[in-house]
Amino acid sequence: MQDKNKIEVCFTPAIFDVFENPEAIVVIVDILRATSAICTAFMNGVRRIIPVATLEEAQSFKNKGYMVAAERDGIVRDFADFGNSPLNFTSGRIAGKEIVYSTTNGTNSIMLAKNHFRVLIGAYLNISAIAEYVISQKRDLLILCAGWKNKFNLEDTLFAGALSDLVLANDGFYTICDSTLASMDIWSMARSDLMGYVEKAAQRHRLKKNSLDDVIEYCHTLDQTTIIPALKDTYLVKLDELE
Amino acid sequence: MQDKNKIEVCFTPAIFDVFENPEAIVVIVDILRATSAICTAFMNGVRRIIPVATLEEAQSFKNKGYMVAAERDGIVRDFADFGNSPLNFTSGRIAGKEIVYSTTNGTNSIMLAKNHFRVLIGAYLNISAIAEYVISQKRDLLILCAGWKNKFNLEDTLFAGALSDLVLANDGFYTICDSTLASMDIWSMARSDLMGYVEKAAQRHRLKKNSLDDVIEYCHTLDQTTIIPALKDTYLVKLDELE
Repeated sequence: MQDKNKIEVCFTPAIFDVFENPEAIVVIVDILRATSAICTAFMNGVRRIIPVATLEEAQSFKNKGYMVAAERDGIVRDFADFGNSPLNFTSGRIAGKEIVYSTTNGTNSIMLAKNHFRVLIGAYLNISAIAEYVISQKRDLLILCAGWKNKFNLEDTLFAGALSDLVLANDGFYTICDSTLASMDIWSMARSDLMGYVEKAAQRHRLKKNSLDDVIEYCHTLDQTTIIPALKDTYLVKLDELE
Repeated sequence: MQDKNKIEVCFTPAIFDVFENPEAIVVIVDILRATSAICTAFMNGVRRIIPVATLEEAQSFKNKGYMVAAERDGIVRDFADFGNSPLNFTSGRIAGKEIVYSTTNGTNSIMLAKNHFRVLIGAYLNISAIAEYVISQKRDLLILCAGWKNKFNLEDTLFAGALSDLVLANDGFYTICDSTLASMDIWSMARSDLMGYVEKAAQRHRLKKNSLDDVIEYCHTLDQTTIIPALKDTYLVKLDELE
C-alpha cells in the first residue's frame, strides 16, 4: 500500500502526539460547535479568524480592540462580544472583519496541528469540499476530533467516519487504523437517522441543559458551502488565499 | 440518576487521568493478549503475578530468580522465560508459582489504576463473572482499554461494549458516556460474527505478521472461568483472596 495515502482518526487532542505526520493534511473537527461556527463565519464573509487557546489570550485581544467570540462549557464569557453558536456569526456583525475566537475544545486543537502540511476546518457544512480537496492533494489524511475535555465524543467521531467514507471511495486511499474503522462503522449505523443518533451524544445533553440546542440540526446539515477555512501561521483564512 | 451507578469506558491509558474515580471498580482490558493470558495463568494455578511496566524491572526480577514473561510488540525478550501468549501459561510451568509479567500495553495500565477501589483483570474468558461481581458491589464501573501504544483499538473496545451491555442489563446502572455508547454500538454490530469483525482489527494484523495469531479465537471465547484476577498492592491474586 506504499503508493496509497493513509487515513487516520485521532479521537482526542490528548493523544495527538502519537499520530503526528507532518506531510499530512489535518482536518480539525468540533461539530458542536466550533468548526461549524467557523465555517459559518466564512460563509458570512469574515476575513480572518484568530483562534486562541486560552481565555487570557482572548481577553488580551479584546483589550486591543478586537471583536472576540469566547465561551467555556457552552457559556459566553463576560468580556466577549458573543459565544460560539454559529447563529452569532451573522454577516452584519462580521463581514470583512478579523475576529478572535476561543472555545472549550476546538481552538486548542487547531493550534496543536500547526506543524502539518495543511490544517483545515471541517464540518458537515463543507464536508464534500474537504473530501475533494484531500483527494486532489494525494496526501495522508489525519482527522483530529476535538472531543470534550480530552474525552472521546460521538458527534465528532460520526463526522470522522463520514469524511473517511467519502475519501476512501477514491482508490488512492486506504486505512488500517482502528479508530478510522470504528468511526466508519458508527457512521454506517447512524447515517440513516443522524439526528436520532446524535440525540444520545453527551454533548447534546450539555447543550440542552444550557438551552443551546437550537443549532444541532444546522450543524448536521451537509454541503452548505465549498469554502474551506485553513490555518495560515496563527490565523484562519479561506484555503484559496493560502495556495 | 444519583442513586444509580455509572459506567464509563476509557479508550487509552493516555487519558486515564480524566476518568479517575477512586471509589469505582476498574476493569483492565487487553484482549490480545495480556488480560486473556493473565486469566489463563490463574485458570492454570498461578499463585501470584507481579505486573511490571518496564523491561528493566522485568530484567531485575529475572536476575533475582523469578520466572519472567516479557514481550514488546509481540516478541519475547531474550532474558525472559516466555512471552505473553496464553498458550505459554501451562499449569506444568506455573502452577503454585509467583511470576513476573511485562507487556507492551497491558501491565502498564494495571498499575495506572492502582488507587481505585478494585482493579480487576477482564477478558472474554471471565466476562460473566466480572459482570456479576460489579453488579453485586453497586459501585461505578470504569473500563480501561489498554489500547495499542496509547491509541484506540477495536478488540478492547468490543469487550468494553460487551461488558457494559451485561452490566447495564441491571437496573442499578446507567451511562451517559459517549465512549461507552460507541463501544456498545460496535459490539452490537460485531457480536453475531465476532471473529469476522476482529479480522479487521489492526492488532490482528500485527499478530499475523509475527505468526502469533493462533490464540485470537481462544481470546474471544466466553466464560471459561469464574476466577477474577485482582490487584493487591503490587501484585495480582484471585479476587477471593483479597476480600
